[in-house]
Amino acid sequence: MSGAGVGRLIGVGTGPGDPELLTVKAVKALGEADVLAYFAKAGRSGNGRAVVEGLLKPGLLELPLYYPVTTEIDKDDGAYKSQITDFYNASAEAVAGHLDAGRTVAVLSEGDPLFYGSYMHLHVRLAGRFPVEVIPGITAMSGCWSLAGLPLVQGDDVLSVLPGTMAEGELGRRLADTEAAVIMKVGRNLPKIRRALAASGRLDQAVYVERGTMKNAAMTALAEKPDDEAPYFSLVLVPGWKDRP
Amino acid sequence: MSGAGVGRLIGVGTGPGDPELLTVKAVKALGEADVLAYFAKAGRSGNGRAVVEGLLKPGLLELPLYYPVTTEIDKDDGAYKSQITDFYNASAEAVAGHLDAGRTVAVLSEGDPLFYGSYMHLHVRLAGRFPVEVIPGITAMSGCWSLAGLPLVQGDDVLSVLPGTMAEGELGRRLADTEAAVIMKVGRNLPKIRRALAASGRLDQAVYVERGTMKNAAMTALAEKPDDEAPYFSLVLVPGWKDRP
Ligand SMILES: C[S@@+](CC[C@H](N)C(=O)[O-])C[C@H]1O[C@@H](n2cnc3c(N)ncnc32)[C@H](O)[C@@H]1O
Ligand SMILES: C[S@@+](CC[C@H](N)C(=O)[O-])C[C@H]1O[C@@H](n2cnc3c(N)ncnc32)[C@H](O)[C@@H]1O
Repeated sequence: MSGAGVGRLIGVGTGPGDPELLTVKAVKALGEADVLAYFAKAGRSGNGRAVVEGLLKPGLLELPLYYPVTTEIDKDDGAYKSQITDFYNASAEAVAGHLDAGRTVAVLSEGDPLFYGSYMHLHVRLAGRFPVEVIPGITAMSGCWSLAGLPLVQGDDVLSVLPGTMAEGELGRRLADTEAAVIMKVGRNLPKIRRALAASGRLDQAVYVERGTMKNAAMTALAEKPDDEAPYFSLVLVPGWKDRP
Repeated sequence: MSGAGVGRLIGVGTGPGDPELLTVKAVKALGEADVLAYFAKAGRSGNGRAVVEGLLKPGLLELPLYYPVTTEIDKDDGAYKSQITDFYNASAEAVAGHLDAGRTVAVLSEGDPLFYGSYMHLHVRLAGRFPVEVIPGITAMSGCWSLAGLPLVQGDDVLSVLPGTMAEGELGRRLADTEAAVIMKVGRNLPKIRRALAASGRLDQAVYVERGTMKNAAMTALAEKPDDEAPYFSLVLVPGWKDRP
């Protein structure tokens, strides 16, 4: 217990997968927390939880926040939106209960918490009501370009971070209008991403990385990848820095 | 000494300034290195070196790489380019000398090494000749948006990372064509950046952060910043994620 008064909410970035890529500050925060919260698919414990496995102290309370089963509903459907909003509201209240009781709650977030992370849904609901600290994490993209030893941007280069969920034409337009790019959320979008890269003349530079910094990491020039299979943890890097001195 | 054979080159990301934002892996690498190399202005020791001050073991060899005095020459001048190329070549050879002697050389890089970092100039010269490892670092932008508690991107948001050195019109065009943006290399470019943000209708959302995560960090809504003074370590954040569920 953290003592009298309300507890503290800590968003903890767990990095791309390698437990040694946690920051010193994140390791300390896990040691100070009374409650460990994390989003996960029903029946799973989630990747962030696996990354910190070796760091958890005995007696730590765990608060898994299980996503409602939503795969049958279309993402743009109103029913999906209201179900997921209800879920984030309920999750925030579950965390608030611990904070009100004076417990410090660490919420795990893969990569960096405020960069496409689910932690953000708790943050916007609780930051006004409780003391909050966000501990940045190594992003998946940093983990992947470091693993690949691929210099990404230098000097006046523009970097565009593009979700692979975007429409194909829009993706191609943006790829043609940037020095460097990172395409996140690859998975089932890989065939579309490949076409957008080809249309914008960037396919030859693209590097595909899956499960970067995890034990079963793999990478290849995208043009040489023979299939369109890609796990959830995959992204595509298009490096800039053409005029190297 | 690392034993027989050639040494290993390690690019070590030192993060945005707070020493606790080093990764566990970076701390380990500093403990294993025989030589600590870093770029710095003549007479200074550099910010990366200051960040790791408390972590260095006795007897560690230091190899500061001092930039030639180039402020009198225009950056686009051929003389500047050849002077800086000579400097990077000589720096790489100085590091190679230690690697050939079997010493492990850690090269400090503020933030993340392969993201606008000077380490990249050594990396491209040495990665083919020696075993190389790059340890990612928390980027300045992650450090700053975490400090500000500012959710940056979610869902299908595009993030554009824009160097403040870009031409004003181009900066404005890109700011109008993205959900979220980070403007790096602010310093003397702040008046121009302010105009480009205003022209693209994004000034009201912009958050200015200087020396993020360092002891003397400061931040403010850019529209409320009364002057155009900005140190080298400053950036501007424009958050996305408009349709929060
Ligand atoms: C919801 S986003 C979370 C991003 C995370 N917060 C960050 O800072 O990088 C999930 C996406 O991150 C990417 N990703 C996460 N971890 C990865 C890894 N180890 N290797 C490759 N891609 C990864 C994938 O593109 C995945 O679809
Ligand atoms: C040459 S770039 C290096 C970027 C670094 N490699 C990274 O990963 O963020 C230098 C720029 O980073 C930004 N920067 C670095 N540290 C910062 C800090 N602590 N606070 C704000 N901006 C910072 C500034 O915009 C500065 O001009």
